[in-house]
Amino acid sequence: MDKGQVEKHYSQLRLDPVSNDWVVIAVGRAMRPEDFSKNKREKIDVSEADCVFCNIATQSAPVLEYKNEKDEWQLVVIPNKYPAFSVGNELRKEQQGPYETMNAIGHHEVIIIRDHKKTIAEMSTSEVKLIIDAYQSRYLSLKDKKFVNYISIFNNYGKEAGASIVHPHSQLMAIPIIDPDLNRSLEGSKKYMDKHGQCVHCAMIEWDITDKKRIVFENKEFVVLCPFASRSSFEVRIYPKVHSAYFEKIDDQNKQSLAEALREAIQRIFEVLGDPAYNFFLHTAPCDGGVHDHYHWHLEIMPKTGTWAGFELGTGIEISTLEPDKAAEFLRLEKNV
Amino acid sequence: MDKGQVEKHYSQLRLDPVSNDWVVIAVGRAMRPEDFSKNKREKIDVSEADCVFCNIATQSAPVLEYKNEKDEWQLVVIPNKYPAFSVGNELRKEQQGPYETMNAIGHHEVIIIRDHKKTIAEMSTSEVKLIIDAYQSRYLSLKDKKFVNYISIFNNYGKEAGASIVHPHSQLMAIPIIDPDLNRSLEGSKKYMDKHGQCVHCAMIEWDITDKKRIVFENKEFVVLCPFASRSSFEVRIYPKVHSAYFEKIDDQNKQSLAEALREAIQRIFEVLGDPAYNFFLHTAPCDGGVHDHYHWHLEIMPKTGTWAGFELGTGIEISTLEPDKAAEFLRLEKNV
Repeated sequence: MDKGQVEKHYSQLRLDPVSNDWVVIAVGRAMRPEDFSKNKREKIDVSEADCVFCNIATQSAPVLEYKNEKDEWQLVVIPNKYPAFSVGNELRKEQQGPYETMNAIGHHEVIIIRDHKKTIAEMSTSEVKLIIDAYQSRYLSLKDKKFVNYISIFNNYGKEAGASIVHPHSQLMAIPIIDPDLNRSLEGSKKYMDKHGQCVHCAMIEWDITDKKRIVFENKEFVVLCPFASRSSFEVRIYPKVHSAYFEKIDDQNKQSLAEALREAIQRIFEVLGDPAYNFFLHTAPCDGGVHDHYHWHLEIMPKTGTWAGFELGTGIEISTLEPDKAAEFLRLEKNV
Repeated sequence: MDKGQVEKHYSQLRLDPVSNDWVVIAVGRAMRPEDFSKNKREKIDVSEADCVFCNIATQSAPVLEYKNEKDEWQLVVIPNKYPAFSVGNELRKEQQGPYETMNAIGHHEVIIIRDHKKTIAEMSTSEVKLIIDAYQSRYLSLKDKKFVNYISIFNNYGKEAGASIVHPHSQLMAIPIIDPDLNRSLEGSKKYMDKHGQCVHCAMIEWDITDKKRIVFENKEFVVLCPFASRSSFEVRIYPKVHSAYFEKIDDQNKQSLAEALREAIQRIFEVLGDPAYNFFLHTAPCDGGVHDHYHWHLEIMPKTGTWAGFELGTGIEISTLEPDKAAEFLRLEKNV
């Protein structure tokens, strides 16, 4: 936005056709990226000597290990020490008062790269690809296990985004249930497919690519965009352009392309918002044995630009104060010299 | 928990029978309240001279004003300067690409008490009652207006909980939609009623009162408890003991009792967690003209004891690391001398 231009206040409700959730885009003041980068990541220095992850490869038995040509580990995957979902042989369902309960059976793993300080924003495409290789490898190893019906892969960067350990890492949780949130997105995309004969995500991407305004970056296989029904300011999604429900089926060329898209997205967020805390996570079809071909896998990146407050917690309606069109404009780096 | 007692790691999935959401209670380490009070409210000093709310009563036209016997204002309600929902005459629904949109029509008000620094934890019951009087008064004024189908009343305390202004205040948003989140809770309680012939919240409260473990405080009319399917550690809910769907029907005696229950809850959270940031919000039946007698209104208080990270954002499943039984034990102040 040009300096001095005064933006009129307006707010709009937008329905996400996948999740069926309403969001509010409420634009009040002319917003600059600086207004969002107040929530900067708190820099916490933990020395390599004190870091629990720096020597993890030698101290625990990794379930996956990638080494370089010098036989030094580059990435390991280990079981989480305090798992939210634990390995077990029996799914015990119990009724406790009016509540249904079950033991949280499953897998909770941590994906750790060797470099203590290098964040994705500072990595090369091939370094990011190594992480994606690990995501896929672990996904394939776990997806057919008993009691595994959904696998969530995610990355928390910065304390404000819930990362309790500074050393860069991602996490994976293989869980026995499909939450109503996920179910609704599966239903939403099924409903759209039945009605329009097209994948709802494909329709969204097509509209975005034609409209151009919310596109941040594209390569042959992937598109990086700010969704029209953004859950928060500067939310970014990465979609494969060719319809595919299942992340785990991605081939090597596509992994390379995804690595580039992810690096581009995170580097731009890093640059525009000044190293903010963020989360990113994978949304892919469940591995519950059902057919979910109508779904369209993707990555979502949510920089910590706002706080879930009483309204969001009480209603489930998220409010963001920046239009996705403007966020994409900033992230295209058009305003930078 | 006694010092030195080592708690076994376990985690359990619990289904909230109202919202139909799963939560995970993952208990790893022996947790003390200090482990949660790291997320302390950041103290920001804004002098009364610089405070936009200190002189608001004289600078804007309040929609509600309570004065004391000396004719000094004690509480005012004003329209929000940057409303997420704005007053309008026409609900314009539009299809934009694959998205349904509408203008965010409604009301967004701020409820301000005069004292610049006095938080609810430091108030008397009658001071808290004044706030509840204002909630009810504004609710009744707005509920029959055109385009108002749900009214959310909430309080954000501390920057970490999304409060952008230090001066204590609550907010109210009267909105044209009922979000799927709210709809699911209405459906969940309806389904339970149809199946069991009883209100699901009444069943939950009854079980909690018999079980005692999660009860924090009770008076004749209200019960303060930590819910079995807590969304976060130290979540607290306040329920009227006698079934009622509609907050706005509360009488004076019950408002007095609710004020006491809210003050007790917040004071205990303040004491145990050391003045944390928190949100509280009202859940009550919509005012959309439908019959929602099966619902049971209540207040939810969520101290900021954790962060929504990649797993929560990606799946909608919230994880808390403290059992509600233990949270209630702390909040009963049994361990204090």
